[in-house]
Amino acid sequence: MPDTHGPGGLFCFEGGEGAGKSTQIQAVAERLQAAGYPVHTTREPGGTRLGEAIRGVLMGDHGLPMPAMSELLLMFAARAAHLAEVIEPALADGQIVLCDRFTDASFAYQGAARGLGDEAVTALERLVQKQRRPDGVLLLDLPVDVGLARAAERGKGNRFDTEARQFHDTVRQAYLSRAAQAPERYAIIDATQPRDALSDTLTTRIMAWLDR
Amino acid sequence: MPDTHGPGGLFCFEGGEGAGKSTQIQAVAERLQAAGYPVHTTREPGGTRLGEAIRGVLMGDHGLPMPAMSELLLMFAARAAHLAEVIEPALADGQIVLCDRFTDASFAYQGAARGLGDEAVTALERLVQKQRRPDGVLLLDLPVDVGLARAAERGKGNRFDTEARQFHDTVRQAYLSRAAQAPERYAIIDATQPRDALSDTLTTRIMAWLDR
Repeated sequence: MPDTHGPGGLFCFEGGEGAGKSTQIQAVAERLQAAGYPVHTTREPGGTRLGEAIRGVLMGDHGLPMPAMSELLLMFAARAAHLAEVIEPALADGQIVLCDRFTDASFAYQGAARGLGDEAVTALERLVQKQRRPDGVLLLDLPVDVGLARAAERGKGNRFDTEARQFHDTVRQAYLSRAAQAPERYAIIDATQPRDALSDTLTTRIMAWLDR
Repeated sequence: MPDTHGPGGLFCFEGGEGAGKSTQIQAVAERLQAAGYPVHTTREPGGTRLGEAIRGVLMGDHGLPMPAMSELLLMFAARAAHLAEVIEPALADGQIVLCDRFTDASFAYQGAARGLGDEAVTALERLVQKQRRPDGVLLLDLPVDVGLARAAERGKGNRFDTEARQFHDTVRQAYLSRAAQAPERYAIIDATQPRDALSDTLTTRIMAWLDR
């Protein structure tokens, strides 16, 4: 167990439906905590009471028409609260923040798959996050068919799970493309490997980023 | 009654609490309809099912912490849906759209009174509205004390009604300042005049804009 810790960091778990992000984030948190690190896990959209209320509007199938731009702005409205109330205070406190989805998801889902374009997302990223960017992004990558089959097994469909196959292909390619552009900040991880091996891989990668 | 109509237009009713916007918008709609104009009345935040759901998050006092940036983004999330589903189709149909609050309210409340600044609002205005701007803005102006007394009588307080006096002063000054910068598009109307006289004044002003 390390005696001292660095200034923490923001590490985001990204990937399509069925990649296992929420399961893995808990397993990785346990491993990091067992190694003596202070860890805070959270998720987007959500992470605050306001964020969870917005998540309800976003994820629920109320039969509400939802223009892509509204979806993007709701994501960032939740993110602004999440940053102010949860992420920035935890980072200031030296904690390791593990976040289930963050702005890369906005680029992949709303920017690419919904067709709003990178520029709209970049404008909001600057407005809402100022200089804040993830210290590392873990892309849990797996073939779309495998992910969708897993999500179907899980049986809790939301507005995103039920999009066409093409939508999820575009999401995956957008994630891979962003990861390729900044390899020092992204790790593309094979999410089809056994659960424990995947947790070990993810934990090792975060520790390597922390040791930088 | 005019035989033909121009291409309609977007006319926004703005002003602080207690200015009588919602009462006046109905009275003006009736006058315009009696004169043969096709009129659609609507309001922000709201105007769509999604917008009304967002309005519930925005206006309700859930005890939810609400960072100013989240408030601004929620307003524009509702606005994006309102434009796509209501305002643009009505304008394309040649209707006169009377809207109870629009982007000037974002400049006055979130930009000025909440301190986010004009630049943040301008960035979102461009992102969400593209080239769309009101054809005329009717600023129902009255002293803050008078407006707050009226709002208190009305008895339905929301998160905005209960802000400090200074907040409402800043809102009023921001509205007046924006109106002064573009007098061809803004009409500053004394909202303390008797109700019917006020309705006549507002209707006349809109007809003058339509005749331009």
